[in-house]
Amino acid sequence: MNTPPPPSVSHTHLLRFTADAGTADAVAAAIGEGGGRVMARSVQHDHHEVTVRAGDADHARTLAARVAEVLGTEPADVDVVMDRHHGGKLRVTSTSAVETLEDLAYVYTPGVARPCLEIAADPARAYDLTIKRNAVAVVSDGSAVLGLGDIGPLAAMPVMEGKAMLMRDLAGVDAYPICLDERDPDRLVDMIAALSVGFGGINLEDISAPRCFEVEGKLRQRVGIPVFHDDQHGTAVVVLAALINAAAVVGKDLAGLHVVVQGIGAAGIAVANLLMSAGVRDVIGVDRDGIVTARRKDARDPIFRRFGKQTNPRDLRGGQDVALEGADVFIGLSAGNTLPREAVASMAPDPIVFAMANPTPEIDPDVAREVAAVVATGRSDHPNQINNVLCFPGLFRGLLDARASAVTEEVKLAAARAIAGMVHPDERAADHIIPSPLDRRVVPAVAAAVAAASTGLQGAAG
Amino acid sequence: MNTPPPPSVSHTHLLRFTADAGTADAVAAAIGEGGGRVMARSVQHDHHEVTVRAGDADHARTLAARVAEVLGTEPADVDVVMDRHHGGKLRVTSTSAVETLEDLAYVYTPGVARPCLEIAADPARAYDLTIKRNAVAVVSDGSAVLGLGDIGPLAAMPVMEGKAMLMRDLAGVDAYPICLDERDPDRLVDMIAALSVGFGGINLEDISAPRCFEVEGKLRQRVGIPVFHDDQHGTAVVVLAALINAAAVVGKDLAGLHVVVQGIGAAGIAVANLLMSAGVRDVIGVDRDGIVTARRKDARDPIFRRFGKQTNPRDLRGGQDVALEGADVFIGLSAGNTLPREAVASMAPDPIVFAMANPTPEIDPDVAREVAAVVATGRSDHPNQINNVLCFPGLFRGLLDARASAVTEEVKLAAARAIAGMVHPDERAADHIIPSPLDRRVVPAVAAAVAAASTGLQGAAG
Repeated sequence: MNTPPPPSVSHTHLLRFTADAGTADAVAAAIGEGGGRVMARSVQHDHHEVTVRAGDADHARTLAARVAEVLGTEPADVDVVMDRHHGGKLRVTSTSAVETLEDLAYVYTPGVARPCLEIAADPARAYDLTIKRNAVAVVSDGSAVLGLGDIGPLAAMPVMEGKAMLMRDLAGVDAYPICLDERDPDRLVDMIAALSVGFGGINLEDISAPRCFEVEGKLRQRVGIPVFHDDQHGTAVVVLAALINAAAVVGKDLAGLHVVVQGIGAAGIAVANLLMSAGVRDVIGVDRDGIVTARRKDARDPIFRRFGKQTNPRDLRGGQDVALEGADVFIGLSAGNTLPREAVASMAPDPIVFAMANPTPEIDPDVAREVAAVVATGRSDHPNQINNVLCFPGLFRGLLDARASAVTEEVKLAAARAIAGMVHPDERAADHIIPSPLDRRVVPAVAAAVAAASTGLQGAAG
Repeated sequence: MNTPPPPSVSHTHLLRFTADAGTADAVAAAIGEGGGRVMARSVQHDHHEVTVRAGDADHARTLAARVAEVLGTEPADVDVVMDRHHGGKLRVTSTSAVETLEDLAYVYTPGVARPCLEIAADPARAYDLTIKRNAVAVVSDGSAVLGLGDIGPLAAMPVMEGKAMLMRDLAGVDAYPICLDERDPDRLVDMIAALSVGFGGINLEDISAPRCFEVEGKLRQRVGIPVFHDDQHGTAVVVLAALINAAAVVGKDLAGLHVVVQGIGAAGIAVANLLMSAGVRDVIGVDRDGIVTARRKDARDPIFRRFGKQTNPRDLRGGQDVALEGADVFIGLSAGNTLPREAVASMAPDPIVFAMANPTPEIDPDVAREVAAVVATGRSDHPNQINNVLCFPGLFRGLLDARASAVTEEVKLAAARAIAGMVHPDERAADHIIPSPLDRRVVPAVAAAVAAASTGLQGAAG
């Protein structure tokens, strides 16, 4: 395989050693011969650094042994991912130093009494006098973390810290991770509503379906600040952004597309809903049991039944094959290797395939490209990566800037169009329908669009 | 009055203007004539800065008008306390920059999966791989904020941010303010226990009595990390520290002291308990209705009745006068101007008076000094300020360093002794029984003592 294995299972190690140039070359060669990939090399005087990626922990140990053999000694060895996580990825810092008793009197007792009294008299002053104006709680119960499943709230912390870190680094948001050891949806709602006081927004994350629908829905009724379940709506926004450009590439109109969404969990439902808000009229949901209809016996719950009612306007029945025949778009949020090449071949001319199952897509992207006009995945090692990082930092930046009280359908549409707009029509191509996750133009564009779409929605302090 | 009014009601303004030296002197003179106090003056070329403190908002406006008259124009005018609070006093920052797609893969998906899995397999790894190792939640329901009372959770935010800021600036702790819109003790316990997952310690703050006892007590049973209600135990630690040195100043033995604690709320009960843990045998509680006894009809609740049983060993009955006659120590945590001069005069020789009611002490400190050997207050404008800042930053630093699972009586005693030890016996005097709140030696000394006293109490990840 040409591309390195993903860091979720792979081990990236930074090796540091003293050697002459010939020995360093021999080290690099040994790594290559052992099946490792040299990601980077640098040298300072006789001090070499080699970043090497191994397929897994055992492979990393084998490569380390090879390197030690070449060097005649053990190199200094840093496990790069673990090193980045050591001690956590966030710090809470203060905006001014407390060095004198006057400082203490200004920021703490007795000076702090006056800001407190101003907020007590006028709650909106909290947006001027506290961190609320710029603070987002990244909240999870750890029940559906990445592709790892129910690993619990403590083990979910690195993901929430990562999200908070990205909000800081990309969008200047003060985001703090709050992992809750609670599973009952009503109690979760009570807790998140109670703790929302000091925040200007709530990013729900990695809460399993169908609890996530109930938690988000009830919270939106309860709190006066925006609540956004990123797994649902962040995914939907970025998928819509990519689809806007993919449709343009193949010269089709968004409204006229026949879209099949495979995998009717939190993300699938949100994607279908947002596509319909954007004007797509023909969306069909497919799961393991085939096309989702309102009348299907196994309709699991009210959300699922409502989905069946609102989609599938031609009232098709049957399996994936029935849904896909003649369809323009396949959007996969399901499981690896579940989309046969022939199914893509049965779609309308110039099919669009978004195969986002993680880590293995619904169809091998290279195979998909043989029959589809546009292919996107969730992976960074293929073109057209559908990555939520394109949405949430700029979205929260814009919501906070506007002091928005909610996330409306218009806000999500505006965010999707802003992301799509980062790919200029001249650059738009089958392998370029979405900007890079770290394209620095994205956050300001999304923030501005979201703030504009939030105008008039400013709430009182929550 | 010689000392400036406290910043809780006073307004400190930084005035900036262009003028010649003579005019600047005239401005300063006008401020003084108007009853304002010039706190600082500086000049750069012809650009002057004058920091002026006024008694209240009206006074500040009057002084500004006088200054404008002298200058013939309005000076630039910064409200110093509000300026320090503008936009909040905290930031959440990240420990490494996310600049490349490799960075993204290391700190977020897919790299973050490996730290998550390590923690899922071994929860103690959260202390290595997340912010938990250094994070404290500063939690309040806003029910008893400073001397302001029940101003609610939103208006309490500036106090909690201030505490978090001090933990960062003085002790390098990552503390985050969590204000909860909830009053039911059991629900508060559930919420704080649920959100404790990502933290290494809980600082409870400004929760009204008697709810604070229940909340803290139940939480300590529930969570595997230290829980510390600062209003109770922080006050108790610093009072004990001051009393250790005050007793030394008057040449009395701690164990033999007769101590009267006036004001039997959260702080008063905690002070009495810690003094007894430190060996003081004769503690008497006094409230509005006189000496607290186990049999008093109005004994409000089990906590109050238990207090009556555990104190007052000589079984005195009556009012403040009965309690104080012949007593060695008065500790006031009650209300202003409630301790008559004659009551102090009736105490044993060399009485010790801690008059900590806020903002007006139980007795004017100047009057108290006429009859008492040692006088302390909660105010920064008199010697011997009893300030919780001496305890909580170093305490949490030590608890986190030790990965302590609880705050024991031994830990509090160790913290008090460490604070007392910062005043060298040679420096110890009636007007120097406690270090300055910002004495930089205090935090490391308290942290080391607390960590040592916590040895063997390390818990598993909570």
